[in-house]
Amino acid sequence: MKKSLGAKTLAQPAPVWAVSAYDEEGKPNAMIAAWGGICSSDPASMTVSLRKSRHTYAGIMKHKSFVINVCPTWLAAESDYLGIVSGKKEDKIAKLGLTPVASDVVNAPYFDEFPLVIECELVHTYEVGIHVMLVGQIKDVKCDDDKLVDGKNPDPEKILPLLFTPGTRDYHSLGECVGKGFSMGKKFME
Amino acid sequence: MKKSLGAKTLAQPAPVWAVSAYDEEGKPNAMIAAWGGICSSDPASMTVSLRKSRHTYAGIMKHKSFVINVCPTWLAAESDYLGIVSGKKEDKIAKLGLTPVASDVVNAPYFDEFPLVIECELVHTYEVGIHVMLVGQIKDVKCDDDKLVDGKNPDPEKILPLLFTPGTRDYHSLGECVGKGFSMGKKFME
Repeated sequence: MKKSLGAKTLAQPAPVWAVSAYDEEGKPNAMIAAWGGICSSDPASMTVSLRKSRHTYAGIMKHKSFVINVCPTWLAAESDYLGIVSGKKEDKIAKLGLTPVASDVVNAPYFDEFPLVIECELVHTYEVGIHVMLVGQIKDVKCDDDKLVDGKNPDPEKILPLLFTPGTRDYHSLGECVGKGFSMGKKFME
Repeated sequence: MKKSLGAKTLAQPAPVWAVSAYDEEGKPNAMIAAWGGICSSDPASMTVSLRKSRHTYAGIMKHKSFVINVCPTWLAAESDYLGIVSGKKEDKIAKLGLTPVASDVVNAPYFDEFPLVIECELVHTYEVGIHVMLVGQIKDVKCDDDKLVDGKNPDPEKILPLLFTPGTRDYHSLGECVGKGFSMGKKFME
């Protein structure tokens, strides 16, 4: 029996991404975002929603660039801290001991400690309620070379992307592989 | 050492959602989507990207409604099948034995077998490359009452949302809880 829970953002799973950018003074900054996803295959594009009041938002608007740093399970507490404290108040990056690296394809920094980073150029903004949905065109993806499969794809079981579950507001790690996409369903074909 | 992988949709994790709608003839239909996410907290909204050629796309455009059925791990093969075969060619819903239920808040069906469903009214469309990003305003969320925490939030460990990892194109289950959001990071506060 299904129970009605109301008009709430209770979709699962949500990603946990550290969105990094230079702030208006050019200092590396980042915040945590769980409202976002891939939005087109070609050109490869992603969306992430921020509030206008965020320190990171102003930096992205100025530099038209941001990086999605995929949060691995082993950096869960650091990632969460990026979502609790504003870059307006302190240099979160220095406090956490993260190493900013200047992207060679967009005007934004990424963090060397994060194993998988997606460098985006801001191409559109759309206001949706209290958030602004940023659309970034992916210019490059960089991954630690010891966390690849066949030298070309990020290995999910080494990246261990963190997941957020709205409602309970928990972080979860990635679970076991249960099958291949575009393959498991073939058993229903005659 | 980071390796450049090119401008590809290699973000992790991506969700696995069955997007259901009535088709142009009014028949319940669904497809699998992994390109999407929550896009605003208020009004609660989600985005999902579809190609215009999809059978489901035409139905959503006609009825201005869709439902995000969160795919649980135990329906991985069924969910994958919804992404392999087009509703133009066969009645996938009947073949999989899914039970369509008419939403009471939007003009779309959901499937009783999926434990968590999010009923959306189409409010915006944005073209991004080869995809159209649909923005849906959430009108209600319904969850099986035996899969709730405290009677009000979906329990991730009972919903067991399926995850997709682009690149390797694997499905993974949800892993263990590693901590609470807006809490784990407090250890870095002085």
